[in-house]
Amino acid sequence: MSTESVVRPRIVIIGAGFGGLEAARALRKTNADITVIDRHNHHTFQPLLYQVATAVISPADIAWPVRSILRKQENAGVMLGAIKSIDTKARIVRADTVELPYDYLVLATGVTHSYFGHDDWQNAAPGLKTLTDATKIRSRVLLSFERAELAKNEADRKRLLTFVIVGGGPTGVEMAGAIAEIARQTLRFDFRNIDPRAARILLIEAGPRILPSFPEDLSAYAEKSLRKMGVEVMTSTMVTDVKRDHVMLGERKIESEAIVWAAGVKASAAAEWIGAEADRAGRIKVNADLSVPGHPEIFAVGDTATLALPIPGIAPAAKQMGKYAGRLIAARIAGNATPLAPFVYKHAGDLATIGSKSAVVKLNKLKLTGFIGWLFWSVAHIYFLIGIRNRLMVAMTWLWSYITYQRGARLITRDDRPG
Amino acid sequence: MSTESVVRPRIVIIGAGFGGLEAARALRKTNADITVIDRHNHHTFQPLLYQVATAVISPADIAWPVRSILRKQENAGVMLGAIKSIDTKARIVRADTVELPYDYLVLATGVTHSYFGHDDWQNAAPGLKTLTDATKIRSRVLLSFERAELAKNEADRKRLLTFVIVGGGPTGVEMAGAIAEIARQTLRFDFRNIDPRAARILLIEAGPRILPSFPEDLSAYAEKSLRKMGVEVMTSTMVTDVKRDHVMLGERKIESEAIVWAAGVKASAAAEWIGAEADRAGRIKVNADLSVPGHPEIFAVGDTATLALPIPGIAPAAKQMGKYAGRLIAARIAGNATPLAPFVYKHAGDLATIGSKSAVVKLNKLKLTGFIGWLFWSVAHIYFLIGIRNRLMVAMTWLWSYITYQRGARLITRDDRPG
Repeated sequence: MSTESVVRPRIVIIGAGFGGLEAARALRKTNADITVIDRHNHHTFQPLLYQVATAVISPADIAWPVRSILRKQENAGVMLGAIKSIDTKARIVRADTVELPYDYLVLATGVTHSYFGHDDWQNAAPGLKTLTDATKIRSRVLLSFERAELAKNEADRKRLLTFVIVGGGPTGVEMAGAIAEIARQTLRFDFRNIDPRAARILLIEAGPRILPSFPEDLSAYAEKSLRKMGVEVMTSTMVTDVKRDHVMLGERKIESEAIVWAAGVKASAAAEWIGAEADRAGRIKVNADLSVPGHPEIFAVGDTATLALPIPGIAPAAKQMGKYAGRLIAARIAGNATPLAPFVYKHAGDLATIGSKSAVVKLNKLKLTGFIGWLFWSVAHIYFLIGIRNRLMVAMTWLWSYITYQRGARLITRDDRPG
Repeated sequence: MSTESVVRPRIVIIGAGFGGLEAARALRKTNADITVIDRHNHHTFQPLLYQVATAVISPADIAWPVRSILRKQENAGVMLGAIKSIDTKARIVRADTVELPYDYLVLATGVTHSYFGHDDWQNAAPGLKTLTDATKIRSRVLLSFERAELAKNEADRKRLLTFVIVGGGPTGVEMAGAIAEIARQTLRFDFRNIDPRAARILLIEAGPRILPSFPEDLSAYAEKSLRKMGVEVMTSTMVTDVKRDHVMLGERKIESEAIVWAAGVKASAAAEWIGAEADRAGRIKVNADLSVPGHPEIFAVGDTATLALPIPGIAPAAKQMGKYAGRLIAARIAGNATPLAPFVYKHAGDLATIGSKSAVVKLNKLKLTGFIGWLFWSVAHIYFLIGIRNRLMVAMTWLWSYITYQRGARLITRDDRPG
């Protein structure tokens, strides 16, 4: 971009997740025209997606229209569209709905599920990245109990009451704990032919322990807590095949029709759009200032980027990177010649809930477990939820289900019932 | 059914709407095995569906798992299934999931949209009977504003900002008022290229006045209120064709891609299942005790039935009929030989909201309008919502959107975005 230009520079931010929104916010005082474009009209608070998938809260409780979030930022507009291609020479983003010329571009398009080359597993084992994923998993879990109630023989009933979660990271641990509670508490008295408490919940992790990013004692605590809740935790166990009605663990066959994929992610196609070098997970190898090599006007943040030092794929990391990129662009537009110091990630901590009354938390040297951990987790998540109404609603809903074990969002709305 | 039988009589209730659930409840003390079967796992509080369609509340706020509702009624079980056929000789209900023999059968399967022979209009103008319908309409309305923001010319923009509601009954009036508020208040500051307040909202009614079931002065009040809110009310106007991007009113063409059908309903296929005589709308012509002629063991209630005197298709009517049928079956099983007095419908009143701060109410001789009407309407609907958590959440949500004009459920989750 030419600095002599008298027109306002155009900044396009692709993706309204944590990284993209933080970049937009960091540019709020900049004399520029910002466009945030996303496939969805809403920002999704992904850390709580598993609660939608397990019928605690409603999709609208953790999603907020991007327009509402940016309403007061007058230099920013919002557009709905899916990216088709990017012309880095002409500097134009081409979406299905619109073409956007840019002077600066921020790629913040996040991740999708990775099935490690087995894309055919996707239908049998949906992952959890969008609200649609969450309602799909919710339907499948609830439907399993409904179908077990109607089952004509013991084998069907057993298969329908088996739930398999692949991947022992925070999402897998949270899903396993929540499904255990649905079976043991929420649905306990709701059926006549089956006892939901007989449900079998398996959490399968390829590595030697669950929650590998946590200290070992917290991993052990989480595993012990899950076992107490009736979850079978299987570590050092590799899933070798997934079909609609079973998973294979080497020679061992586990029959189940409710399989959840929480094992791996890969970056969106952003690297392909701009022809940039990427790592195995598809993340763009960026410079120390998050710019794309050879393209000082293009930045990649959050899960779309990779640096020499590994950065976890969590919301705070995406926010820090988005903020950094936004500030850097703001400084350039302001004509500030001094380059910013390279981006440095500050790790605040790791959190994961185990059911609705316990959590493990690691903050610097502080470790919290059990109810105290859960309290901390609740406050932190409520605090970061965007929009005061959402905060209030989610807080009330949690309090309610904490007291009653009821889940208010037990809806099967998708049309994926059996024949 | 033979009265000498020592086994408990089997009662099958098809449909977990207002009529079916009330029938089940009336049988709670009866020595019988009751099965409630429904296509969905949840009871939907249909009077508030339009609030889901207009992004005020979430689907889960007005839906409750049928299992939860009947949890404590030990003689009742719940099954998920869609009816395929009924063998009235062998007395067996055949669903896609299960076969249910019965001694008594209650048909409470409600209505679906009627396009008066123009079934091809359905895709262009969805109706509002299920949660899926509601989220579809919500997406379409919100998407119209999004696409208008991206429109390349004035004609597209105008078409995308035109909303057509066909049918001037309570649902049509409520939808028109709510869409007017979305355009004039909620989205007012959210766009950069369009002014949502420029949206055109048309309410089209074939008859001489809107709200034909209300007294004339309340119809006039509602029409005046809607006009004040910027809704164009067109009475004595016939829709002659509906396409995905326009409606024809005789010679006049109105371009719109957000068309809502609130004009007509027809009964489900219950009459066909049992080969019973039905009226033009498909409702079974029942005896004065709601039994089906020639089948003293089969009852039809709510929108599935028609009597000599017309009964409105509203929740209280369905509940009264369900209760009557349940009591009659209970009396028969108890061996009570005295027949019950014929069913008599008691009309409590009519209610319709006009936007979020006004309503028209007619109760016997009492007429309420404006804010007082709205207060009455709110209390009545909150009171009848099933489940204390739902009541609380909906009340809080209304209070919130009343104060702020915000709508928390502005999600476009369905995949019906333009190419």
